[in-house]
Amino acid sequence: MADLRGGIDLGGTKIQAAIVDARGDAVGQARQPTPTKGGPEDVAAAMATALREAAQDAGVEPAQLAGIGVGSPGDADERTGVVSSARNLPGWEGSFPLAEVLAKELGTEIKVGNDVQVATEAEFHLGAGQEFQSLIGVFWGTGVGGGLVLDGRPWLGRGAAGEIGHVVVKRGGAKCPCGRKGCLEAYAGRSAMEAEARRQHEEGHKTDLFHLMEKHGKPRLTSGIWERALDNGDHLAEKLIDRAIEALGTGVASAVNLLDPEAVILGGGLGVRFGERLMKPLTDEMGKHLFADQRPPVVRVASLGDLGGAIGASLLFSR
Amino acid sequence: MADLRGGIDLGGTKIQAAIVDARGDAVGQARQPTPTKGGPEDVAAAMATALREAAQDAGVEPAQLAGIGVGSPGDADERTGVVSSARNLPGWEGSFPLAEVLAKELGTEIKVGNDVQVATEAEFHLGAGQEFQSLIGVFWGTGVGGGLVLDGRPWLGRGAAGEIGHVVVKRGGAKCPCGRKGCLEAYAGRSAMEAEARRQHEEGHKTDLFHLMEKHGKPRLTSGIWERALDNGDHLAEKLIDRAIEALGTGVASAVNLLDPEAVILGGGLGVRFGERLMKPLTDEMGKHLFADQRPPVVRVASLGDLGGAIGASLLFSR
Repeated sequence: MADLRGGIDLGGTKIQAAIVDARGDAVGQARQPTPTKGGPEDVAAAMATALREAAQDAGVEPAQLAGIGVGSPGDADERTGVVSSARNLPGWEGSFPLAEVLAKELGTEIKVGNDVQVATEAEFHLGAGQEFQSLIGVFWGTGVGGGLVLDGRPWLGRGAAGEIGHVVVKRGGAKCPCGRKGCLEAYAGRSAMEAEARRQHEEGHKTDLFHLMEKHGKPRLTSGIWERALDNGDHLAEKLIDRAIEALGTGVASAVNLLDPEAVILGGGLGVRFGERLMKPLTDEMGKHLFADQRPPVVRVASLGDLGGAIGASLLFSR
Repeated sequence: MADLRGGIDLGGTKIQAAIVDARGDAVGQARQPTPTKGGPEDVAAAMATALREAAQDAGVEPAQLAGIGVGSPGDADERTGVVSSARNLPGWEGSFPLAEVLAKELGTEIKVGNDVQVATEAEFHLGAGQEFQSLIGVFWGTGVGGGLVLDGRPWLGRGAAGEIGHVVVKRGGAKCPCGRKGCLEAYAGRSAMEAEARRQHEEGHKTDLFHLMEKHGKPRLTSGIWERALDNGDHLAEKLIDRAIEALGTGVASAVNLLDPEAVILGGGLGVRFGERLMKPLTDEMGKHLFADQRPPVVRVASLGDLGGAIGASLLFSR
């Protein structure tokens, strides 16, 4: 039991918990919807529930675990276990002592880390990045997040490193959900892409995107809806995906010019769904801006899937 | 004598050699013009001459040195001592075993490193970056070069890290001397700025830049000429310097968003000349794009001056 660890991936729509053994295999798992009302206490309670169910699935008590790691959005302070400014979670504009509250609730030690960083480390240790010593994780989803592993170790900077979504790809360019201009995420983040699709649709550009969204009962343009639209040859969807790929290629190339890593691992909802299909246009776009272009990094799609975040969180107890 | 080391900074216009003691102080120095004709052998011979003169200045024989480090442009392979594609040096398109040739000539061990990286390390160990554990060195001169120190150690990637001059600031933007589009260097490198000034001058924009260049007998728009033009209120000079600062602020902010370092050290001919004068506009431009904008890195001007490169090269024998 002592070498079993828990991992919780705290997402904007779901909470994924896993019990992970020493080899990094999930031996139990459970999922809860992320509360959309209330505050951090309610989110913490749902996290505890998810973890207890995962422990039950693995036939273990939470208190028997060697520790539980949490991959969190917002500003997750690894030293204090406090999470601040998790703005896509209800009532979480301020700071909340997440590690302390969960430790009391679950009876074992808790560590928190950045959700994208721990998912990057999971790919590094157990997934698509295992053979490399340095890599950039690029998580292309609602936003565009990033994580860094350099010389086999996570690079966190002063706690906020890896923000590849806010690498500027076009000075004076499109407005980003973060409020700044020209960020990679302003072109490639699913939220920004949906806002742009809606704007162009309202301006009269034809698209089936929103019809597909309603037909499939989705509250937003999910990666699956984008894929259907591409499959149907929807021009606006094609145009916006091309634009996202151009921005991704540019921003990732800038990061590679700065860090010269062995590999880039592409994850996230859109990254996993489109990674193989759009690998050639993506690497072509990167190639236009790579300084050491005779020796590009390996680009791979993340391999751990939905459980990557929770498994990565459990690894907070092995580094 | 055993703790004296040599350092050679191989630049496009001059070769600076220094003899450096264990505290990092230069106890002897000499300078040679970089040959403009011939090939790598001729450049190596001039380097050996500069080092011998510096050794004489310090009252020591080259063979008595613990080693000699070389900061080189182009692709400097630290493991093999081979320098390739140093395109601003005569006849150096291919590869040349610089360390081997200099070792025979000077009778002591030679290590080569990237010129900008060793200058960054000099600022880290002995200059403006001494109090920090992580920093980005930005060398704003003919081109825009960069070096990284992370967690107290140089980060070289696969040998080509630090190319902040080729971080893209504007997708589809200005043509860079490297042949790509929209790189930071395309807006801020002295060469690119001069080409743009000449183009706009030929298009009829008024400027005193080229008149000042001739009057002072300079072969190019040096940092001193740019400064005189700014002092005279030359509109084109102001416009192009503003454009360079905008690009620098954007590119450096992208690098900071990715790496979250404690400090940015601004060096290079233009960086040292204009760093204090333009610090506020530069940090204002950075601020527009910093993701963790409540906690920007410290930005400082490099403090080791002209000898920084040679001193940094000598440090190749202490890391």
